[in-house]
Amino acid sequence: MERIPILKMGAALLVTIQVDMHDRLAMALEEDLTAKIAGNASKGVLIDISALEIVDSFIGRMLDNIAAVSRMLDAETVVVGMRPAVAITLVELGLALTGVKTALNVERGMALIQRRIDADVVDRGELDDRSAE
Amino acid sequence: MERIPILKMGAALLVTIQVDMHDRLAMALEEDLTAKIAGNASKGVLIDISALEIVDSFIGRMLDNIAAVSRMLDAETVVVGMRPAVAITLVELGLALTGVKTALNVERGMALIQRRIDADVVDRGELDDRSAE
Repeated sequence: MERIPILKMGAALLVTIQVDMHDRLAMALEEDLTAKIAGNASKGVLIDISALEIVDSFIGRMLDNIAAVSRMLDAETVVVGMRPAVAITLVELGLALTGVKTALNVERGMALIQRRIDADVVDRGELDDRSAE
Repeated sequence: MERIPILKMGAALLVTIQVDMHDRLAMALEEDLTAKIAGNASKGVLIDISALEIVDSFIGRMLDNIAAVSRMLDAETVVVGMRPAVAITLVELGLALTGVKTALNVERGMALIQRRIDADVVDRGELDDRSAE
């Protein structure tokens, strides 16, 4: 397998990380994701890492990168399914993933993205009201 | 990685196959899936194979097996994201996956499962009406 599949689920994209990441795979994932975000006008990216028993600084940086790039394209990144042991290790490593939101599982992550979309709609609605005055 | 993650999405479970399957991994997946179907009372299983460039008879049998076991537990299996070349090869191999439903992508597969759930609700509703008479 050369590419990690990206699944479109409504306004969000879902990626499950199952294989060991290396440089080229991470770069390919970033490229594919940006293309899909732009192509589908996606508002959120869910990255499921429940299969990962170890998250090292390389994967931590990759997640941060994906979140930063997605943000530029107006999509929010939510990392879901992190194992408790992984969370402990990340903090011990000093990788607090400050640029990334997290949720316990895919459903909660999806709810987080949906809330953001709803908030955007309200914001746009208010703007329209004001411009109409 | 020893296990393929199974993601709960509402009434359905989602599995993305990204790694080469072997006997023990396939058995572990079947076990995990049946446990999750029973635990969550799931009505559908979505198996995304968009990452697979080759589907051989082993994977074909595994998909058929999962579908058969899921059916026993009242869950429908939908294989999504099959590449056109894979479909051609499967038919050439004489593996038509007759026990498995297919959909173009996760969204359509989810819609298929949702329609089945809605139909079940209608069926139960009619049954209740009759018993009330």
